[in-house]
Amino acid sequence: MAKYALLLEYNGSDFHGWQIQANTRTIQGCLEYALSKFANEPVKTITAGRTDTGVHALNQVVHFTSNAKRNLCGWINGVNANLPASICVKQVAMVEDDFDARFSALSRTYHYYLLNQPLASSIFEKLIGWYHRELDLDAMQKAIQQLIGKQDFSSFRAANCQASSPVRDMIAAEIEKSGNILRFTFRANAFLYHMVRNIVGALVYVGNGRLSQDEFTDLIAAKNRAKAPPTFMPDGLYLAHVDYANNIFNENESGMWLFGGNSSD
Amino acid sequence: MAKYALLLEYNGSDFHGWQIQANTRTIQGCLEYALSKFANEPVKTITAGRTDTGVHALNQVVHFTSNAKRNLCGWINGVNANLPASICVKQVAMVEDDFDARFSALSRTYHYYLLNQPLASSIFEKLIGWYHRELDLDAMQKAIQQLIGKQDFSSFRAANCQASSPVRDMIAAEIEKSGNILRFTFRANAFLYHMVRNIVGALVYVGNGRLSQDEFTDLIAAKNRAKAPPTFMPDGLYLAHVDYANNIFNENESGMWLFGGNSSD
Repeated sequence: MAKYALLLEYNGSDFHGWQIQANTRTIQGCLEYALSKFANEPVKTITAGRTDTGVHALNQVVHFTSNAKRNLCGWINGVNANLPASICVKQVAMVEDDFDARFSALSRTYHYYLLNQPLASSIFEKLIGWYHRELDLDAMQKAIQQLIGKQDFSSFRAANCQASSPVRDMIAAEIEKSGNILRFTFRANAFLYHMVRNIVGALVYVGNGRLSQDEFTDLIAAKNRAKAPPTFMPDGLYLAHVDYANNIFNENESGMWLFGGNSSD
Repeated sequence: MAKYALLLEYNGSDFHGWQIQANTRTIQGCLEYALSKFANEPVKTITAGRTDTGVHALNQVVHFTSNAKRNLCGWINGVNANLPASICVKQVAMVEDDFDARFSALSRTYHYYLLNQPLASSIFEKLIGWYHRELDLDAMQKAIQQLIGKQDFSSFRAANCQASSPVRDMIAAEIEKSGNILRFTFRANAFLYHMVRNIVGALVYVGNGRLSQDEFTDLIAAKNRAKAPPTFMPDGLYLAHVDYANNIFNENESGMWLFGGNSSD
């Protein structure tokens, strides 16, 4: 019996999120089917981050154990051969028995790409978030600083979140801009359910003037989801990187921009 | 009765190409439905380039005539409201009676984006072409020069092409590279059926060493499709620009790169 970790990329547009469910197409369901077929025995997976419906991953990490004797390239090619084109195993590594994709993770990094122009992109439909009115980037930059640090994120926590505590340690939070595209980066020890999309929704309200800096401060302090703006669309959300004490994989693209120029004007 | 031109963007992944057909989802079918609904009368369209199944457009041009009295913004918003998110009217303009989206066009420009790395992109599935083995870009650059000028493109013409002549004037043909992505640009007065995909297929054979420069020269001279490599996948093909004697629209993105870095490594 050996333990393996996989590095996965997927386009979440056509899946009902990560978690395996009966009668529904999910990433975990497709992956466990492909792993089990290639290993010729049932394989169960544990993931670093259970992404939601419509959310994508550039570098998702998963672990599993198997008795199957296969070389590492075999795991990549054999599993990919049984996966749809919208999911891809990019790397595989043997890991120690005490490695756990979820519990060994020190932090998760998410990117949110937001196209800010009057018309939505048809080319990148479902791959990029969109807001039609002008946004005050300076105001958003100022507000996002308030999210850094260990604090109670109840105002950005979905009602059906199952975490035992609403406290998370936000290690980094920033916004970069290129052309008509904003990229939000959030790195935290872990995230609450819908936390990134709820934060992006609130920052868009800061950008369009519906929330002042003080109101944003009050919103965090309120620890009350009912006082916050609506959850933003999942389309532009990407799990970009999971950090562990030891590097398991060669990764270089979590810092890369996915999109070039604007595709509509 | 007034005549209008539209500038369209679309993601061709989920359509059976441009041309309207019974019982099949096509771009033209969806567009004429949306135009007719907004105009409250049947509207027929003529396009600059009838893109094939799975081919995308950044700046497709279409004309139509209508008795409906609507302001120009109305045409954009009203028609978009009746279109799927994968098709978008970006601009509209009133045009002279003698304007014809197809016959007034001086040239068409296509881009082909090709991801060149061992693994395909799951994020950009259906939006970018893919070739797994290393390509000799210098050899491809040399070969593509041979395509420039007015000549017989029979070797790159699909068997079921309905054009009366195989002669086309290739005004520009070039390859640019950024990261793991090659972008081919082809500008010609007009294109034969499958011409760009057939040319890309042949250039990939030059790049992987299966065709020498001399063999590529011979292939053009043979004027025989049966001697050429297979048609390349439609995924990375974009109609980027249509040129007319007078500028109808404000366009600036035909030169922009659609994709940022590589999404897999």
